[in-house]
Amino acid sequence: MKTVVLKFGGTSVGDLSRIENAARRVINKLKEGKRVVVVTSAMAGETDSLLSLASQTKGNLNPREVDALISIGEQKAASLFAIVLQRLGYRAKSFCGWQLPIYTDSVHTKARILSIQTERVLRELENDVVPVVTGFQGVSKEGDITTLGRGGSDLSAVALSHALFADCEIYTDVEGVFSADPRLVKNAKKIDRISYEEMLEMASLGAKVMQARSIEYAMKYGVRIHVRSSFSENEGTWILPEEEVMEKPEVRAITLDRNESRITLVGVEDRPGIAYEVFSALGNSHIVVDMIVQNVSHQGFTDLSFTVNRNEQSKAFEIVKEVAKKIGVKDVVLDDKIAKISVVGIGMRSSYGTAAKVFEVLYKLGINIMAISTSEIKISCLIEEKYGELALRELHQVFIEQ
Amino acid sequence: MKTVVLKFGGTSVGDLSRIENAARRVINKLKEGKRVVVVTSAMAGETDSLLSLASQTKGNLNPREVDALISIGEQKAASLFAIVLQRLGYRAKSFCGWQLPIYTDSVHTKARILSIQTERVLRELENDVVPVVTGFQGVSKEGDITTLGRGGSDLSAVALSHALFADCEIYTDVEGVFSADPRLVKNAKKIDRISYEEMLEMASLGAKVMQARSIEYAMKYGVRIHVRSSFSENEGTWILPEEEVMEKPEVRAITLDRNESRITLVGVEDRPGIAYEVFSALGNSHIVVDMIVQNVSHQGFTDLSFTVNRNEQSKAFEIVKEVAKKIGVKDVVLDDKIAKISVVGIGMRSSYGTAAKVFEVLYKLGINIMAISTSEIKISCLIEEKYGELALRELHQVFIEQ
Repeated sequence: MKTVVLKFGGTSVGDLSRIENAARRVINKLKEGKRVVVVTSAMAGETDSLLSLASQTKGNLNPREVDALISIGEQKAASLFAIVLQRLGYRAKSFCGWQLPIYTDSVHTKARILSIQTERVLRELENDVVPVVTGFQGVSKEGDITTLGRGGSDLSAVALSHALFADCEIYTDVEGVFSADPRLVKNAKKIDRISYEEMLEMASLGAKVMQARSIEYAMKYGVRIHVRSSFSENEGTWILPEEEVMEKPEVRAITLDRNESRITLVGVEDRPGIAYEVFSALGNSHIVVDMIVQNVSHQGFTDLSFTVNRNEQSKAFEIVKEVAKKIGVKDVVLDDKIAKISVVGIGMRSSYGTAAKVFEVLYKLGINIMAISTSEIKISCLIEEKYGELALRELHQVFIEQ
Repeated sequence: MKTVVLKFGGTSVGDLSRIENAARRVINKLKEGKRVVVVTSAMAGETDSLLSLASQTKGNLNPREVDALISIGEQKAASLFAIVLQRLGYRAKSFCGWQLPIYTDSVHTKARILSIQTERVLRELENDVVPVVTGFQGVSKEGDITTLGRGGSDLSAVALSHALFADCEIYTDVEGVFSADPRLVKNAKKIDRISYEEMLEMASLGAKVMQARSIEYAMKYGVRIHVRSSFSENEGTWILPEEEVMEKPEVRAITLDRNESRITLVGVEDRPGIAYEVFSALGNSHIVVDMIVQNVSHQGFTDLSFTVNRNEQSKAFEIVKEVAKKIGVKDVVLDDKIAKISVVGIGMRSSYGTAAKVFEVLYKLGINIMAISTSEIKISCLIEEKYGELALRELHQVFIEQ
């Protein structure tokens, strides 16, 4: 009998009527003769409100206690989910991370899963009980509650699917993965099948359908994922190994990321060690740097630019100004009016000229490219924010709609 | 180094500023050189709001899932309590029932404690960490979350005190145990020391300072309890073995219970088996009967009265009307305008005539006694509700104030 893991996100269990809706999805699977394990997030908003309660204490928050506090959101959702399934006439039991257990390391608030014991879940499945497992949380070998970081419930679901040799269905509030954000591009198409590699690029480019870590995990272990809406019966998007993805278009999707800012060191002396000084200082403060550009040198001086997440821009700006005093720089400039436009597709590997075509489209729109970064299956260009949506629509038109 | 268990009730941890206030009580104990273990209830109202959420599902609630759901109230309070202690500069860690563990049987929503493992708590105390333990909840040998029933946090605190050879301080929103409800009797006196037996009688008479089961437990194992206010520095009331209670007055306290209703079967045939029929039917429906009175028989017929808790009166009334059809009864009458007035005191054992004095006081006030029940250290009279407060004040005047 086939086992399937159904994971419901925060909006899919946002209130009791939505939990009932989700429970009916579970029941449909049971009626198809499948065994179902549910993984649930906290009800939408719960984790944030617990965190805001904790931060009202104004102290440094101890991560062990933050985990003990915020993990209750999933416990609440899981027990309510089991209660609703029971009311609809089905056997169900909720389980916290420690009850399986889902063992993690001890890095509180961003723990890594070490192993999942499946005995209890398998025993319940034998007895026709639907196990409803809390996402997001686990337990350390020391017996402390841990959490897996933002979006960690996806990871719980993927890891549990792997442990149970099951497919994984991720129920969310969108119909699947689209060729572009449908709120910005009216002809955006739902993608039927996408490879892990492409999905991973899209996640890191800010398309927030699934957390990047859980896609990495699925890729490593070959877990087949079906991302779909909990509010419609339509098929969503399958995330699969590349060999199972039939269609391999040059460009699968186009993303627009407006969450980055650019910092430029103007008039830096062009000598070894400068980049090291700047980026080691940022790294020591755990600031993630995305695109880096250094212009050619003029009379021994150059400009050095890089982008960081917009919510870390002030911190990064302060750090760089400090470093700038030491290394001697004409000016440090912060620009948060930028956007990153990216095209992603595994077909890019075997086709020539995708980059050139992207540059041509932007050129014809009169858009200046401030920086470029590429991978085997992705091309990203940094442009002025005001041109973001225009570029997105035009690239979608050229690469997807034609 | 002496260890003390400090238990805080729902109002004492009702919001973050109250938790801070409670944390300062803990810190004062630490400054006195004591080791402190905290036991906390859920923040006031939390458990009820979780229960009401569950009951919105309108199904029969599975007790295992109810426990998984309502236990999160204590987890939330415990982790916030630890966070606040940390902010005030002290080491603290929260623990759920399963983390010690506190083992219970599997009778969900009213489990009994089987054993408490103290190794983890002792290890934390060695490291100058304040363990903040969730009240109310435990874990079964099967690894399921259990709860101990209403007021169960008191029991957690008393049992943990026993396991740690510690005294137990119960912090609540009243100054201690009084000779009568101070809202009704302005000269009510705070009692400094009271025996377990007296406190147990008072709890069963509806004085809601502490849950009866936790007093029984304390009595069985000789745990010394100090009930006090979390909002004042005053000494409260010590609940102790009888030999440690110095003063042994004839009457320690007077209670007025207006939470009962009386059901009367009028014109019952006076033959064996009638009482059995009535009370087995009620017992089968888990309805607790308090006082029972059967009048003398007239021409083979009698009246049978008993009292039940007011919130079970409708259920009990329906059951009795069903039974009445079978056994033949002239009428079944429900009266919810009654009150039970009781005097309690261990001195009663060695003094004569307490009962007579109670009856005299009521007689002089012109109050009719509908039923009487007594124990070695208690006399209860059922009277009309409208005379309740008058009787309370007069009995307090005669027995306590003089």
